[in-house]
Amino acid sequence: MMTRAELRRRQGQAAAMLKRAGLVVTQREVATIEAADCGLGDFERIGLGVLVYVNTERCCAKELALWPRQTFPEHRHPPVGAANPGKEETFRCRWGLVYLYVPGPRTRRPKARPPRGREATFTVGHEIVLRPGDQYTLPPDTPHWFQAGPNGAVVSEFSTTSLDELDVFTDPEIRRITKVLG
Amino acid sequence: MMTRAELRRRQGQAAAMLKRAGLVVTQREVATIEAADCGLGDFERIGLGVLVYVNTERCCAKELALWPRQTFPEHRHPPVGAANPGKEETFRCRWGLVYLYVPGPRTRRPKARPPRGREATFTVGHEIVLRPGDQYTLPPDTPHWFQAGPNGAVVSEFSTTSLDELDVFTDPEIRRITKVLG
Repeated sequence: MMTRAELRRRQGQAAAMLKRAGLVVTQREVATIEAADCGLGDFERIGLGVLVYVNTERCCAKELALWPRQTFPEHRHPPVGAANPGKEETFRCRWGLVYLYVPGPRTRRPKARPPRGREATFTVGHEIVLRPGDQYTLPPDTPHWFQAGPNGAVVSEFSTTSLDELDVFTDPEIRRITKVLG
Repeated sequence: MMTRAELRRRQGQAAAMLKRAGLVVTQREVATIEAADCGLGDFERIGLGVLVYVNTERCCAKELALWPRQTFPEHRHPPVGAANPGKEETFRCRWGLVYLYVPGPRTRRPKARPPRGREATFTVGHEIVLRPGDQYTLPPDTPHWFQAGPNGAVVSEFSTTSLDELDVFTDPEIRRITKVLG
């Protein structure tokens, strides 16, 4: 849950991050930025700012704004019906630094750590480091999580249709859709 | 047809345009930029620079670099088999100015004109003006063409799978795939 005042403050901060990354966003779009707190009420530690440019029945493009060391928890995009094997997504770092974790050999000295007290809900540990101009494509239904570096990050996401409310999080306490009060 | 030397020169120019628009592109990516001259050998007048970030069986993201007043000619993305109604695409202007023409009421005093001598192959005339932060989504199989403003333009394209070689151009002289010599 988040108050309307906090949402507006987060929208302003996310817009400033996008601007710093060289991206032009309209005022009308700023008011649509989502501040996802994963239902945990600890946004700067666990959450994500999201601007959806377009999300049709076939494809989607977003900008993600990550606060310094902010983590977005482990989840996957499951199949939806017979025709959709689940969301496929490409992350492209535009600004800052992001550590992405996917299935594969566990990285020995990872640059990011899961938030304290929630380690058991982070099961994949193969590290992909994304700096500006780097990108990585995730197949459907692949568990993944990510954390920004010390200055935060701005990441473009190119994907098939987003059905965020159907995402499956490893942590059963998480609620993908943030309720805004007032 | 284009020589390898001209292609390299165009790639460098396109990379400079993307950089000016605030976009970070790796050196390896610059070498993959396509300079599409539509087979007409008059690139700065009719053509397009294209950097493909990702193009899977499901979705695609590109950056388009347009030289000042450069036109990309009228075409559509037709259905491909029973399952694919044709490419759906969203254009988002990042830098500069672009005039996009789509079906609909003809704009009375359009800001762009088709290249001289080829007017008959430009049939749609409903003008959409895209400035930085503006975007427009085209349904599949919709004829469209576009021209940059006086300083050129950088445009992000978010879409379903790109099958450029299947595009249908109104002008039968056009060849979408540029042959590079040498």
